[in-house]
Amino acid sequence: MSDYSELKPDFNKGLLTAVLQHHTNKNVLMVGYMDEEAFRRTCAEGVVWFFSRSKGRLWMKGESSGHVQTVKDMYLDCDSDALLVQVDPQGPTCHRNTESCFDLDVSFTLRDLEDTVRERAENPEEGSY
Amino acid sequence: MSDYSELKPDFNKGLLTAVLQHHTNKNVLMVGYMDEEAFRRTCAEGVVWFFSRSKGRLWMKGESSGHVQTVKDMYLDCDSDALLVQVDPQGPTCHRNTESCFDLDVSFTLRDLEDTVRERAENPEEGSY
Repeated sequence: MSDYSELKPDFNKGLLTAVLQHHTNKNVLMVGYMDEEAFRRTCAEGVVWFFSRSKGRLWMKGESSGHVQTVKDMYLDCDSDALLVQVDPQGPTCHRNTESCFDLDVSFTLRDLEDTVRERAENPEEGSY
Repeated sequence: MSDYSELKPDFNKGLLTAVLQHHTNKNVLMVGYMDEEAFRRTCAEGVVWFFSRSKGRLWMKGESSGHVQTVKDMYLDCDSDALLVQVDPQGPTCHRNTESCFDLDVSFTLRDLEDTVRERAENPEEGSY
């Protein structure tokens, strides 16, 4: 695991806004918020923890679904109140069972194309060529 | 310009968190916040407006630098309190004159490679081949 000790978020401004991005296809998956303890656990454990504003408690993303977000890299922004977390998601990120909490289904990515080609090769349809 | 009238952010929870992503290389450029008026102007004008929490006022991104962010597409998240804005940035997004407010300089993108190849072709260095 990487060393994130050089990252010093500014928690005086409130919660840290965390943007989760898929580490290979670069889709933005979700936005969440971290307090100091969520950030500390994320750095220590290598999986994403949030502070849930609605639940009012710490929350490991995927704690009930099993779809944890493995941290690949993290970047703090220029005023230290936003964090970009590049992740390897263990399953769909959104509770709706979609890859992203944003409705990116109309977006095109190379990975989508690869998945489609692989899926069609494995499950050929008559008349499709 | 696209029609964003189907996007209905929930401003009852406070400001809308807006993530700006480059529309082609998919780098995350910055995080900002919108109130209803900033969101309305962004939809109407096709360039990104924020509500600055530090300045306490509406703020068109690039109003002083000229580096406005042209909106290419927008996606609301599943609980309607975060917005992904895919943009064509007119110049560096960060006030430090970097592409992103996140320190992505160690990251590798195809566009970076293209830029490097083009820059070196235009400004050849002796001994470089």
